[in-house]
Amino acid sequence: TIYVITPTYARLVQKAELTRLSHTLLHVPQLHWILVEDALQKSTLVSNLLRTSGLSYTHLHMPTAAQRKLHEGDPNWLKARGVEQRNEGLRWLREDRRAAAGGGGEQGVVYFADDDNTYSLQLFQEMRNTLKVSVWPVGLVGAMKYESPLVQGGKVIGFHTGWKPSRPFPMDMAGFAVSLRLILAKPDACFDADAPIGFLEGSFLQKLVTMDELEPRADDCTKVLVWHTRTEKPKMSTEKAMQAQGLGSDPTWEV
Amino acid sequence: TIYVITPTYARLVQKAELTRLSHTLLHVPQLHWILVEDALQKSTLVSNLLRTSGLSYTHLHMPTAAQRKLHEGDPNWLKARGVEQRNEGLRWLREDRRAAAGGGGEQGVVYFADDDNTYSLQLFQEMRNTLKVSVWPVGLVGAMKYESPLVQGGKVIGFHTGWKPSRPFPMDMAGFAVSLRLILAKPDACFDADAPIGFLEGSFLQKLVTMDELEPRADDCTKVLVWHTRTEKPKMSTEKAMQAQGLGSDPTWEV
Ligand SMILES: O=c1ccn([C@@H]2O[C@H](COP(=O)(O)OP(=O)(O)O)[C@@H](O)[C@H]2O)c(=O)[nH]1
Ligand SMILES: O=c1ccn([C@@H]2O[C@H](COP(=O)(O)OP(=O)(O)O)[C@@H](O)[C@H]2O)c(=O)[nH]1
Ligand SMILES: [Mn+2]
Ligand SMILES: [Mn+2]
Repeated sequence: TIYVITPTYARLVQKAELTRLSHTLLHVPQLHWILVEDALQKSTLVSNLLRTSGLSYTHLHMPTAAQRKLHEGDPNWLKARGVEQRNEGLRWLREDRRAAAGGGGEQGVVYFADDDNTYSLQLFQEMRNTLKVSVWPVGLVGAMKYESPLVQGGKVIGFHTGWKPSRPFPMDMAGFAVSLRLILAKPDACFDADAPIGFLEGSFLQKLVTMDELEPRADDCTKVLVWHTRTEKPKMSTEKAMQAQGLGSDPTWEV
Repeated sequence: TIYVITPTYARLVQKAELTRLSHTLLHVPQLHWILVEDALQKSTLVSNLLRTSGLSYTHLHMPTAAQRKLHEGDPNWLKARGVEQRNEGLRWLREDRRAAAGGGGEQGVVYFADDDNTYSLQLFQEMRNTLKVSVWPVGLVGAMKYESPLVQGGKVIGFHTGWKPSRPFPMDMAGFAVSLRLILAKPDACFDADAPIGFLEGSFLQKLVTMDELEPRADDCTKVLVWHTRTEKPKMSTEKAMQAQGLGSDPTWEV
């Protein structure tokens, strides 16, 4: 089973993002979606979407601590997003899922899939056999065409990245998967919510593997199978002008 | 058969967009994708993507006339995009497809799906039975939560839109589908490339129906089943800095 952990938060494009992501996941056999809302409680929107998605899933929620929340206008590199939610997904795998996982479940693989990225179906085939941590390139990330592990003789020997290549594991969240066995064997490994941006992935991977142990996928890390796409925030200027005249969109509609 | 006409153009996010759109379309039975590249010739990227997509498709190309092309920095409301490409899709349906369409093919429905929007699967069920032109709300468009036809007694009696509601058919491209029979019966109906933005959809629909004939779908136009999402243009600042040092990403990689 591939366990896909996705943090998500309420915003205008949330339903659209989760809709198209669910269409991708629905093509992948033996997949379990762990969707973790950044919220004090589970929302009706997400509950209904999951229920009608046709996917096997677990619906969790975990609010981001107030002092860690980004505010309107903050530059988005200020604080890492989705951290507490990914850790909540890990907690569920280790605790609630421990019994089941103790059996055949240990064959599983864990992947962290943000709700706005784009995933090829091939990607899921590449990660399915992961002994410890498998890795591959990520497109359109870090203000570059792609970032990627550099592979020689089947081993990762460095990283193609534009920023501090000497960081521990300078890879995007979308660029690796971890075996469930390893997640269970290292119960303390989680994402450090206080790690500066760019050090978040490393704060987790450091506790799991050495660079030498990484398992290159996607033709020795030469194919882009996942893209760090971002969706524009929709303008609402006309909506506001219409509301001022009492002609706004129906607020009860789910969009 | 649902014939989906999609204009597309080369840019950094093109492969990502077409990948996730193809995942959505792959869930829809009896669908034929007419993908029209805005290019002088068909590209390898799109050809390969279609070939491996698992979809039934037709690959066309039609470049936008030079004087109609948007330039870097132009505001995107200056000129309508994808117009010649949609007309080329219509031409194919009417000419190359005429023989096939003359038979059972007339049962078809034609939908114009931009490559960056988000489509629910339910949407395709709603449009499948279209006598002339079926219509529904579109989310996150026109700087509003949604735009929508207004329905009373099963008939469209007006439109919820923030801008010139008296325009002919003030609806987004994503908000209607047309029966193939009607497309073939009105061989001259196409999109007017010189129509000002906001009048493009009307330039086509005017030749096909009256407002009174529109067939409301999605629970009398009260459900949002399609979203006019837009994808951010990825930054390439680090890429450029790296290239200046001879450390740029491999230009031969397809991203
Ligand atoms: O306040 C927030 C902001 C983001 N996210 C989620 O965290 C992940 C990464 O966020 P985002 O895509 O905005 O980050 P970026 O694209 O800048 O890396 C996504 O799945 C978001 O839905 C979240 O749970 N709470
Ligand atoms: O030069 C261009 C720009 C856009 N498009 C296509 O036309 C449609 C509408 O373009 P876009 O999504 O940029 O328009 P908007 O989101 O602003 O309505 C999309 O399918 C694009 O891929 C095109 O073929 N050539
Ligand atoms: Mn993101
Ligand atoms: Mn668009």
